[in-house]
Amino acid sequence: MGMSQDGATGMTVKAGIINVTGYAGSELARLLHRHPEVELVSVTGRSAAGKPLSDVFPHLRGLNLTVEPEITKPVDVVFSALPHAASAEAIGPFLKSGVKCVDISADFRLKDQAVYESWYKVTHPFPEYIGEAVYGLTELHRPEIKKARLIANPGCFPTGGVLAMAPAVRDGIIEPWVIVDAKSGISGAGRSADVKYSFSELNDNSSPYGLTGHRHLPEFTQELSAVSSIGRINCTFVPHLVPMTRGILSTCYARLNDGVTQQRVDELFRDFYRDEPFVTVSPSAPATKHTWGSNECHIFPVVNQKTGMLIVISALDNLVKGAAGAGVQNMNVMFGMEETAGLKSVPVYP
Amino acid sequence: MGMSQDGATGMTVKAGIINVTGYAGSELARLLHRHPEVELVSVTGRSAAGKPLSDVFPHLRGLNLTVEPEITKPVDVVFSALPHAASAEAIGPFLKSGVKCVDISADFRLKDQAVYESWYKVTHPFPEYIGEAVYGLTELHRPEIKKARLIANPGCFPTGGVLAMAPAVRDGIIEPWVIVDAKSGISGAGRSADVKYSFSELNDNSSPYGLTGHRHLPEFTQELSAVSSIGRINCTFVPHLVPMTRGILSTCYARLNDGVTQQRVDELFRDFYRDEPFVTVSPSAPATKHTWGSNECHIFPVVNQKTGMLIVISALDNLVKGAAGAGVQNMNVMFGMEETAGLKSVPVYP
Amino acid sequence: MGMSQDGATGMTVKAGIINVTGYAGSELARLLHRHPEVELVSVTGRSAAGKPLSDVFPHLRGLNLTVEPEITKPVDVVFSALPHAASAEAIGPFLKSGVKCVDISADFRLKDQAVYESWYKVTHPFPEYIGEAVYGLTELHRPEIKKARLIANPGCFPTGGVLAMAPAVRDGIIEPWVIVDAKSGISGAGRSADVKYSFSELNDNSSPYGLTGHRHLPEFTQELSAVSSIGRINCTFVPHLVPMTRGILSTCYARLNDGVTQQRVDELFRDFYRDEPFVTVSPSAPATKHTWGSNECHIFPVVNQKTGMLIVISALDNLVKGAAGAGVQNMNVMFGMEETAGLKSVPVYP
Amino acid sequence: MGMSQDGATGMTVKAGIINVTGYAGSELARLLHRHPEVELVSVTGRSAAGKPLSDVFPHLRGLNLTVEPEITKPVDVVFSALPHAASAEAIGPFLKSGVKCVDISADFRLKDQAVYESWYKVTHPFPEYIGEAVYGLTELHRPEIKKARLIANPGCFPTGGVLAMAPAVRDGIIEPWVIVDAKSGISGAGRSADVKYSFSELNDNSSPYGLTGHRHLPEFTQELSAVSSIGRINCTFVPHLVPMTRGILSTCYARLNDGVTQQRVDELFRDFYRDEPFVTVSPSAPATKHTWGSNECHIFPVVNQKTGMLIVISALDNLVKGAAGAGVQNMNVMFGMEETAGLKSVPVYP
Repeated sequence: MGMSQDGATGMTVKAGIINVTGYAGSELARLLHRHPEVELVSVTGRSAAGKPLSDVFPHLRGLNLTVEPEITKPVDVVFSALPHAASAEAIGPFLKSGVKCVDISADFRLKDQAVYESWYKVTHPFPEYIGEAVYGLTELHRPEIKKARLIANPGCFPTGGVLAMAPAVRDGIIEPWVIVDAKSGISGAGRSADVKYSFSELNDNSSPYGLTGHRHLPEFTQELSAVSSIGRINCTFVPHLVPMTRGILSTCYARLNDGVTQQRVDELFRDFYRDEPFVTVSPSAPATKHTWGSNECHIFPVVNQKTGMLIVISALDNLVKGAAGAGVQNMNVMFGMEETAGLKSVPVYP
Repeated sequence: MGMSQDGATGMTVKAGIINVTGYAGSELARLLHRHPEVELVSVTGRSAAGKPLSDVFPHLRGLNLTVEPEITKPVDVVFSALPHAASAEAIGPFLKSGVKCVDISADFRLKDQAVYESWYKVTHPFPEYIGEAVYGLTELHRPEIKKARLIANPGCFPTGGVLAMAPAVRDGIIEPWVIVDAKSGISGAGRSADVKYSFSELNDNSSPYGLTGHRHLPEFTQELSAVSSIGRINCTFVPHLVPMTRGILSTCYARLNDGVTQQRVDELFRDFYRDEPFVTVSPSAPATKHTWGSNECHIFPVVNQKTGMLIVISALDNLVKGAAGAGVQNMNVMFGMEETAGLKSVPVYP
Repeated sequence: MGMSQDGATGMTVKAGIINVTGYAGSELARLLHRHPEVELVSVTGRSAAGKPLSDVFPHLRGLNLTVEPEITKPVDVVFSALPHAASAEAIGPFLKSGVKCVDISADFRLKDQAVYESWYKVTHPFPEYIGEAVYGLTELHRPEIKKARLIANPGCFPTGGVLAMAPAVRDGIIEPWVIVDAKSGISGAGRSADVKYSFSELNDNSSPYGLTGHRHLPEFTQELSAVSSIGRINCTFVPHLVPMTRGILSTCYARLNDGVTQQRVDELFRDFYRDEPFVTVSPSAPATKHTWGSNECHIFPVVNQKTGMLIVISALDNLVKGAAGAGVQNMNVMFGMEETAGLKSVPVYP
Repeated sequence: MGMSQDGATGMTVKAGIINVTGYAGSELARLLHRHPEVELVSVTGRSAAGKPLSDVFPHLRGLNLTVEPEITKPVDVVFSALPHAASAEAIGPFLKSGVKCVDISADFRLKDQAVYESWYKVTHPFPEYIGEAVYGLTELHRPEIKKARLIANPGCFPTGGVLAMAPAVRDGIIEPWVIVDAKSGISGAGRSADVKYSFSELNDNSSPYGLTGHRHLPEFTQELSAVSSIGRINCTFVPHLVPMTRGILSTCYARLNDGVTQQRVDELFRDFYRDEPFVTVSPSAPATKHTWGSNECHIFPVVNQKTGMLIVISALDNLVKGAAGAGVQNMNVMFGMEETAGLKSVPVYP
């Protein structure tokens, strides 16, 4: 690491992005470019290798970067936005050479290799790193992230659902099962050429998917069970596509223990997130657009006394808090920088 | 009733619409205009009285109707698309004079007057008609509708949720509670001048509402409990606004009894809806756009063996099967016409 | 042709659709299914051959059709919704065997083979049919269409632009040049797997395309020049993608001759379209949604006295009046049926 | 002015926003909050006075501001986002007391008071300030802005159209008339409770407006004529609503002089905007989304040799470069700060 550009902490972290040509990759580029203590030195992409980054993403013209076939310059940290399996393969060599890694893919999220291999239908390329990888939901794993060299950045859906239910699960005020009904913007499907993600098919339309099991489900189970004071959590998760570009709205349901009041729930949630820079317990029902382009997550717990249910809503931007922003937040913690560095921008609304 | 225009049943029903200037009213006009055995003779509206209907709705230019301050011609049936309370007041005189009525508002949906008055915060204007009103979910109340002279057309949300869960509730294959998580197009909020329904606030945005209780909840409870073989059903209902114009996607959750298989559920649902002209048990996950502009409701039940949950999805067009189309379907049944008359059009997709 | 199903004209036309699996093809299926004097007997598609049509388009479940590799039953008329070149090749054999053809592709629209080959970069597969093909803008070529056996269905953009400017060009009230600035819904790009037509790229976004020349330009020139009383018309045409599924809004500009008043223009346009069932000269600025799902075209001419410009707006549904609906309208004329048969539905709004 | 927070120029400008509760006002708050040399000390709003700003705009929670009935603290600069007439009245006292003002309304844009009063149908409240007000299209009036104390911030449409056509007009390579066909996102209509701006009316819909004359027209004429080397420019301007939240795409047409090549046009435009930090001459057709949330304007000139037309496209975010961002840019110039201060963020895409 060289000297700081702005004197804040005396450091400039040199960063690289593997596979900048998807939406998580381009969002990483947007965030790292404006980070006061990071220099984005190299970005890679297969199909666009050799082209200016602005050929693929005109909005990144100001970064003056060229897409390279691989990371060519020395880096302190590398972010991989490759698909699973390919991602583990790509970051293996960096790990070996001591470069810190933030893996946006699912490769190191699941602690149980067999669970990973059964959901993702591949043999894990680098199982030897699963043990030391830290699940990068900063709010739950900050102490481990500080010491980590490999971050498994969480899936966008588990980020919204686990943040919504973690306080209730840890405090044991509910029965040990949750339902997460998630409404996702289409960018969560990635930058892909597929009729089913075309504008004409998705505009003015809503539909569920993954009804027989979505790959993010084991993350819910692992993380909620890990924080739980009431044993393993039985998770039901149904994602839906709704016609917006960014955003995940998660509506979570659980059976509340007798006698738990709205006031107690409010206090519990506010205490849980009191010192968190990016999680806000909202005073009213959240809307995804209020987090657009920012690393914020808005959470709103409601006690339905008539039915005895706890309903918790969370809203976030799937490409920021659900992917690239969380990655930058984790990098900040790993390198001892201010956790909000590069992530202070106000959401863009409307 | 005069002679038939096309000879099918030998009748022409003269119809009027009270408050044609909202979305339910204009959709009724669209459907009744093309109905082979109906003549739409009079439409009313307060703010636009005296103007051509096409001034308010250019797409209805072909109907050549003028908005009137009140129904001026003899009618066999009147549809009221007024807000609650105003609706009951407006149709009272028609009922007294023997005109059949389809009330699109909530005024006669709830059998318990006290429940109505507590949710709607008004004194019921004509409680003497509550008893004879028939809840117009045709699939559940066809025999009574045949003999009815006052139809309480169901709310758009209960239509989707009750159709989704009625087979499981009647057959008693679940525990006696359901969660209905509904995603609604914005036209469900009506044709209203309110910042919160403006394009800039809602586009590319999703949010829940009615978290402390939505007025459609007692309809869920009343209708699911009425069909239930397992006693009163404890309903939790959370509606959401998603950025589309039409459509309701309902994702319903219930705890399945042990040992109930996907095959048994499939058979149950197919049997339940075997002869229904407008309800289809889908072979794959439904999407709201596949019902656009039509009276269809698509239902898809899924057994999640891992969690023991039954998940049932339903999709419909809130202005057709969720309002105007259901009203026309009920009228058809009341007058002994073919149930699908005027409702045979194919959905408009994409 | 067999006997009529409803007695109206004593005929049932047996129809086939080649390439039903795109948006023009599926819209043809929707319209022909409800046509009272047509029986849709066979539909083809390459990738989906052998599958139920409802596998590709769940909204067409009610048609109970299977996608076939080729037209297998005797037909009186065949519609081809194949891409150019492939379309001419596919309909050649039908023409030879005496079946009437409506070609939705561009293959027979341009009277000058060299112009076709230069814009479409192919050798014309059946140039011998160019001469007898009739350009199917019904409003301009009705007499020839009555006698035709091959209809070249117009492009969606020329339909909007030529209908907007034909009255002024024929009457010679403008200088001999026009600018057509068109805003198109995305379904005009077809049902295609391409990142550039994905929801995430196009939602909340607008952009021009074809700036160096769009293939619909020679149609503008050919048709406006043919109707012109002021010689060849110099056409500038710029299409734009705007984030809607259906609809084309064309804003057309021309320099008005001195002294031409709004009143004269209004009279001219009303006279020109007085007896047209599908073209309405609107009393106010049109909006594409007012034509959704219908065969209507709304036209609104405005004289800007300050600048001496004539501005004419037209609005239509690109998949109906801009493609499938125009094809059905042309079929009706060819077979001597009522021109509006199967096309009487009211637009779906909102 | 106090001391700098970051040492860049040694200053902190204290700023106030009058009428923060509209979209221009809230966008000013977003931009000024992150400006390194500005402290946003007071924001006003009538209906929400006394409430936390986050009650109206949850995305601005981080600003910790309360909406006040009027500016209560000493300020160095005041931005007014009030409607016309009300705006001039509100900033008059600030001007008198020596506070620099950026007026987002139209009150001081037009140099000819009679033209203003005829288009806006009001008597100008402070005509004595018209003379010294500087039209804040920074790229054309930077020297005057440096010395100004009252900036008339340009309309969103003239910003796009004038930037697109200024090079050609100044260089005299076209005939002295232009057509500007603009496609606007809905936020340009402001934060208003009106059925015509509701989601259901505007989604999946496009329409023109202002066909008999839009108030931004005299700005086009004034500014293009002022920069012109070919005399007064005859402007035709037609705005359209397209279903997106932000963005203006302007497609501008003019008759090119004989012999002007694409190469010459490219050089002209690149020279004109060579040193401009926020205007980019694009290498390909621009899209509005590529400027989302940023102060950028992308311009793309195309010579159509066949028709002899010059077509120039421009794309910008109507709330940033078209309103609040331009206001901040002007403030930066007025106070001698770096012109890009607070405006360096990368557009949010997709």
